[in-house]
Amino acid sequence: MKIAIALFDRFTALDAVGPYEVLSRLPGAEVTFVGEREGVFRTDVGSLGIEVGATFAALADPDVMLVPGGPGVDEMVSNVPLRAWIQRAHRTSTWTASVCTGSLVLGAAGLLEGLRATTHWLQREALARYGATPSKERVIFEGKIVTGAGVSAGIDLALALAGRIAGETVAQAIQLGIEYDPEPPFAAGSAEKAPPAVVELLRERARSRFQARG
Amino acid sequence: MKIAIALFDRFTALDAVGPYEVLSRLPGAEVTFVGEREGVFRTDVGSLGIEVGATFAALADPDVMLVPGGPGVDEMVSNVPLRAWIQRAHRTSTWTASVCTGSLVLGAAGLLEGLRATTHWLQREALARYGATPSKERVIFEGKIVTGAGVSAGIDLALALAGRIAGETVAQAIQLGIEYDPEPPFAAGSAEKAPPAVVELLRERARSRFQARG
Repeated sequence: MKIAIALFDRFTALDAVGPYEVLSRLPGAEVTFVGEREGVFRTDVGSLGIEVGATFAALADPDVMLVPGGPGVDEMVSNVPLRAWIQRAHRTSTWTASVCTGSLVLGAAGLLEGLRATTHWLQREALARYGATPSKERVIFEGKIVTGAGVSAGIDLALALAGRIAGETVAQAIQLGIEYDPEPPFAAGSAEKAPPAVVELLRERARSRFQARG
Repeated sequence: MKIAIALFDRFTALDAVGPYEVLSRLPGAEVTFVGEREGVFRTDVGSLGIEVGATFAALADPDVMLVPGGPGVDEMVSNVPLRAWIQRAHRTSTWTASVCTGSLVLGAAGLLEGLRATTHWLQREALARYGATPSKERVIFEGKIVTGAGVSAGIDLALALAGRIAGETVAQAIQLGIEYDPEPPFAAGSAEKAPPAVVELLRERARSRFQARG
């Protein structure tokens, strides 16, 4: 089973590596990081670089494809090679997935028209631009397309997907293997649960960032 | 604030990248992956390679140091350069942390003598070899030493640490930024919660692996 995770500059590390950690443990899984060129792609904060295992051209027909999010999505929504790879790979994939703002890239490639989809909580409105219906759920299955909410939701998405691919027992064994029994030290993981001042802080930062890029 | 995450061959990706995603968002944080040599280190399953930003020699005095786990720990518990780096860096660190079986490496370096510590649930007994008292908690603070349970516990550890370093509001903002509001699709994240057959499956695999390496 060929699993491809797309990389690009300024991706968010956990968007890609959460699903990697789960999906790479599936029996017969062969996970490859793919990118427009060979070499290393760097995260949003720059200090983590992951090496690509194949170019888009070299892995055009994965069984499972996943697009992470991150600030680089600003450019990736109009990146022609990534869009072409997504459209090509989606024609033959068994599962097409995104984490966080990766769903905006799927949307820009025309995959989410008329579908319910999720993304990072600060970017839900942006999904509507691509004809999708934004929803607050953490993981949304629409046929073979699976979208996950922000960053850490990729772990939940990948475990749910592992269950669909290999059955519940295999998915549970993976969950136990990565000891995924979360105990967040604060109740601040969603805009509904976090203190209002914290929510406002992040909204304000998102507005500044939007204004900065004009 | 200099944050160093140690890399070695056959590390487990999420052990390192979960904490990276959280700690790199701390104000003033400069996260560097460090290793015995320059270049790329590969995970246990081999398909993910992370590039080192500095050698051990080049970053001997981080404020925060973190050692991930993974199958490579089998060799790392007796790796001289890693041990020397840990011992040197721990003398001046503000926080010394491990995720998963990374705690065995801290133990082998003599840091856990007489302390309570945690690790991957299948490896708790191994901690006692190094004079530590194994405990089931997900994250354990003992003075400036912080140990986390298996793989995904690194996210909880890093958020707790972020709270100690920068205060609760900053940690909550990071948690909301990575939308860490986990919804595991199965109740299988600990040996207490998972179906007994799944627990036995993983115990059996661990025994085979132990026998295979003699």
